[in-house]
Amino acid sequence: MDIIKVSGTSRTSAVAGAIAGVFRENMHADVQAIGAGAVNQAIKAIVLARGYLAEDGYEVVCLPEFVDVEIEGKTRTAVKLVVELRHPEESEEPEESEESE
Amino acid sequence: MDIIKVSGTSRTSAVAGAIAGVFRENMHADVQAIGAGAVNQAIKAIVLARGYLAEDGYEVVCLPEFVDVEIEGKTRTAVKLVVELRHPEESEEPEESEESE
Repeated sequence: MDIIKVSGTSRTSAVAGAIAGVFRENMHADVQAIGAGAVNQAIKAIVLARGYLAEDGYEVVCLPEFVDVEIEGKTRTAVKLVVELRHPEESEEPEESEESE
Repeated sequence: MDIIKVSGTSRTSAVAGAIAGVFRENMHADVQAIGAGAVNQAIKAIVLARGYLAEDGYEVVCLPEFVDVEIEGKTRTAVKLVVELRHPEESEEPEESEESE
């Protein structure tokens, strides 16, 4: 599953749509941001995505953590925002149609 | 219960301590930030506070939302980060002193 990388110039609504899309597919989305502007855009996008997903009946939560990422040979600390169902144990398969790889 | 107001110059560790303290008292903490720098500090503080509270046996999640706040007569949009137990229904009274094992 791809990480959704957010920058300070990312459009909130576009990121929110990406989060909701990845979440619907995987019941999980990882959002990564480096720097204050990027973290702010990411959080605003998660507010919107939570609204979209609530309309689909999903209560999602945000689990922020630090991760070290390597960019051009340098290690930087990013904020990873994991978007998950609040109660994953109660989740129902939304559309059980998985193809085998 | 007081809202923990974070600015772009707030110290992450101080905010994290405040969040953990308010949470332990109320099983809930509201963190408010206006602007990218403040949201970034707030999220970093929540990463730390999640770690502190995990050591106490609390799995907390972050629920971001928008709120309108009035500042000097003007309405501004703030980000409110609600910190709650992931599974509040399973919560046990923290003061419930356990017998020795």
